[in-house]
Amino acid sequence: MNTPLLDTQALEQTLQQFADERDWNSFHSPKNLAMALTGEVGELVELFQWLTEEESTQVANNPATARAVRDEVADVLLYLVRLASVLGIDLNEAVEQKMKSNALKYPA
Amino acid sequence: MNTPLLDTQALEQTLQQFADERDWNSFHSPKNLAMALTGEVGELVELFQWLTEEESTQVANNPATARAVRDEVADVLLYLVRLASVLGIDLNEAVEQKMKSNALKYPA
Amino acid sequence: MNTPLLDTQALEQTLQQFADERDWNSFHSPKNLAMALTGEVGELVELFQWLTEEESTQVANNPATARAVRDEVADVLLYLVRLASVLGIDLNEAVEQKMKSNALKYPA
Amino acid sequence: MNTPLLDTQALEQTLQQFADERDWNSFHSPKNLAMALTGEVGELVELFQWLTEEESTQVANNPATARAVRDEVADVLLYLVRLASVLGIDLNEAVEQKMKSNALKYPA
Repeated sequence: MNTPLLDTQALEQTLQQFADERDWNSFHSPKNLAMALTGEVGELVELFQWLTEEESTQVANNPATARAVRDEVADVLLYLVRLASVLGIDLNEAVEQKMKSNALKYPA
Repeated sequence: MNTPLLDTQALEQTLQQFADERDWNSFHSPKNLAMALTGEVGELVELFQWLTEEESTQVANNPATARAVRDEVADVLLYLVRLASVLGIDLNEAVEQKMKSNALKYPA
Repeated sequence: MNTPLLDTQALEQTLQQFADERDWNSFHSPKNLAMALTGEVGELVELFQWLTEEESTQVANNPATARAVRDEVADVLLYLVRLASVLGIDLNEAVEQKMKSNALKYPA
Repeated sequence: MNTPLLDTQALEQTLQQFADERDWNSFHSPKNLAMALTGEVGELVELFQWLTEEESTQVANNPATARAVRDEVADVLLYLVRLASVLGIDLNEAVEQKMKSNALKYPA
């Protein structure tokens, strides 16, 4: 029996409850969530755009950007997990399958 | 003791090993990974762009798009988890903190 | 009398005719076009993601990427001009106003 | 002799001068500008993400969003034109070539 690569069940339930309590379900179509994901990725990328690659390695250690980068990474993850959830995608299964394809596509 | 909202440890280790075996670490600066994330989000969004919101709910059930949407969601997740990993961000902690901020920002 | 900063009238008319001839107008809501723009930006960014900044300066000269980068830049522009057009935005006016704001925000 | 589909020369010169006066040229690598473009597209998409397609048609008329959408469309255009400029891409030529490919790919 394999250990799963990731487990997002508690988060998916928490996000569903969060949406239920705010009457957000009608806004959470996959189309809308995919757009929201774009917006959050844009905010994340903005933290890196004028940095050199070397400087970018310190973004989470730099007090000026440490909190912002954690928040933006979290925002991207929240919308992605919510999107998978409303689509009925099992994230662990999807990731396992994709890692197998990647291993074939890019041999070590 | 709280249950974590998510657990990505096994995936982070697998991705690190995958990068090690292919000598990809020098390409995996946070700046580059943020760009790769953008590219994958673009591919995911393309699956939804001409659909109505109603149609978008069936993307993972429609045989024509079921595999593609799983693969693209997985690709976005893989780059996001890899980015968090190279930045040294604890994803569960980041998500817990962001959910607390969101609960204050959007009261039920 | 000022010279306009840009002129996209002929392109806007050509894109309208292109959409008319293919019955695409019902797909070209601003929401959908904003998503299509995301997809094309993703494809453009993919050309740069593993390059150093120095290498990125040669993308339009490198025979392996010269055509692709022209095509992706054009695709982004086409969707952006089409989006402005269906929204009824005068691009030259919008750009002039934004350049004035930028000049105040970032003094020379 | 054909009328050009678009003319961005005055804008390209203005943007070059703007960068020169602020010592921004060293930041304006194609890689960085492609990232900045992503960020601006994200901000533009955020204006549409929770709207229906029908509602999205009124974004430039709605006083609450009219200025924001003009500014974000302008920001995307500014970075795209600047990117083409530093890459040495002739935008009119790139667009003409792409429109020809599109006409073949999608017959009327």
